[in-house]
Amino acid sequence: MRGVGPSSVWSHLSVGPARRDSRGAGGFRPYLPGAGPGHGGTQPCRYRCGGPAVAVAGALREQDPGGEDSRKDLVVASAPAAPDAADSPEGAAQPGAGSRPPARLVVLVSGSGSNLQALLDAAADPGSGFGAEVVAVGADRGGIEGLRRAERAGVPTFVHRLRDYPSRPDWDRALTGSVAAHRPDLVVSAGFMKIVGASFMAAFAGRFINTHPALLPSFPGAHGVRDALAHGVKVTGCTVHFAEAEVDSGPIIAQRAVEVRDDDDEDTLHRRIKEVERGLLVDAVGRLARDGYRVEGRKVYIP
Amino acid sequence: MRGVGPSSVWSHLSVGPARRDSRGAGGFRPYLPGAGPGHGGTQPCRYRCGGPAVAVAGALREQDPGGEDSRKDLVVASAPAAPDAADSPEGAAQPGAGSRPPARLVVLVSGSGSNLQALLDAAADPGSGFGAEVVAVGADRGGIEGLRRAERAGVPTFVHRLRDYPSRPDWDRALTGSVAAHRPDLVVSAGFMKIVGASFMAAFAGRFINTHPALLPSFPGAHGVRDALAHGVKVTGCTVHFAEAEVDSGPIIAQRAVEVRDDDDEDTLHRRIKEVERGLLVDAVGRLARDGYRVEGRKVYIP
Repeated sequence: MRGVGPSSVWSHLSVGPARRDSRGAGGFRPYLPGAGPGHGGTQPCRYRCGGPAVAVAGALREQDPGGEDSRKDLVVASAPAAPDAADSPEGAAQPGAGSRPPARLVVLVSGSGSNLQALLDAAADPGSGFGAEVVAVGADRGGIEGLRRAERAGVPTFVHRLRDYPSRPDWDRALTGSVAAHRPDLVVSAGFMKIVGASFMAAFAGRFINTHPALLPSFPGAHGVRDALAHGVKVTGCTVHFAEAEVDSGPIIAQRAVEVRDDDDEDTLHRRIKEVERGLLVDAVGRLARDGYRVEGRKVYIP
Repeated sequence: MRGVGPSSVWSHLSVGPARRDSRGAGGFRPYLPGAGPGHGGTQPCRYRCGGPAVAVAGALREQDPGGEDSRKDLVVASAPAAPDAADSPEGAAQPGAGSRPPARLVVLVSGSGSNLQALLDAAADPGSGFGAEVVAVGADRGGIEGLRRAERAGVPTFVHRLRDYPSRPDWDRALTGSVAAHRPDLVVSAGFMKIVGASFMAAFAGRFINTHPALLPSFPGAHGVRDALAHGVKVTGCTVHFAEAEVDSGPIIAQRAVEVRDDDDEDTLHRRIKEVERGLLVDAVGRLARDGYRVEGRKVYIP
């Protein structure tokens, strides 16, 4: 049996996620119905989620009395995007009048950061209606192109090297704290090569997004492309999914197929998969950001 | 570790497969290099396989001195299709002048036989250049639409019901004998619901083709569609593969992706997969029949 996601999580980026964790340490935790103030109320939700209503602004104030919190404005001042999208699909992709502020992304990298660049480009394109912005980039090592991309885009960065901490849980808590400090609506692993720990997953489960260069559940693990080639499949692809404690097991947000060619080696196939993956990640993050999402068991629904 | 195919099998339908098994019982066995006369020689093969040459006509005579064997004619009289295909792709799909006789298919069914119908239609279409004909249809039960389709097309049928045999191996041997009697180049399971046994696999390994309604290795077993839905994948599909003793594990011939929709249930998704599967099966069988194929480890190459 593979890992199973939360039994039911509705997440509207303007509504639920990213409340400051009252257990301290500056950690955030994802919005979970019934887990505290917010979506556990009794009125129908005006954000089309089918669940009970939320008084998020109040909840945010209660949990984070002194802090600046742009999400309060998102909830109180902005129109919900999803109904707009239903009435006018084009309108939903337009930035500006009536739209909520963009969702806050923290992106984690370990290398060249080509997926990060795709997110930065989408966010920077005023015509894309992307619906999200990269508010910080974190890494597990210094001197990498991923960090330079962030710096060129004027995005703050942080680095936590495992070797600088007495233990892996210490490293994990530091990483968790730095990510949380940027109050992300979504955290995206864009080629982040470290497996995060319990603190991180407790803080960001249900909004920590990973990519994998295969059509999960086929070929999980570190060698998704090589394993697909060795198995002789004719179709592989890429997966954008919510990360869970078990690697490559979380609920699947989006997938796209890539044909395997007879003359492919790991490098040529991986290159084609990465190209598709960038588009898929931008598309998936944008949809989550603009429309919200619901996770039921293993299934991710985006309205 | 999943099942692994034969380490290296080149099969040209006009060349290697379907020699009468000298161990008796009327069984055939697939062509295996080095396993006897044929492809184990030392001259380069004229059929573009990259392997050593074959004196198949002689081998057939040696093994089957008295029998009628149309494949002897296939080898001796016909031009190889693959070089034609390389020079003129359109020409390869043209029946008639210079082409070898069609490959012989035995198709096994247990139900409505929609995949069988697709193969019958392709074979009956003079413009399709399909390169194969259905020479017999076998079933594990009577009174099914699959058998009626065969009868309407004038194709001989046979039925072996498990309950009519004292043991499963007895049933398996009878099935093997009936299939072998039609001297198939390829055997296609078109929704055949019984798992065949050791006799059958010994006779037809490397040319027994199965379909599966998922992108193997994801979701093997009897509920490929239901399991994919339950896992929440966004892309599934179908697989045409060579069957091995371990179910849904053999070398993959062809795959095609099918998108999962949010409102899919098992029935709607399975219907879309089946539609794609029919086209994929016809395409794959036609390519194997016209061009031959090579299996290296788990990989199937069609020139």
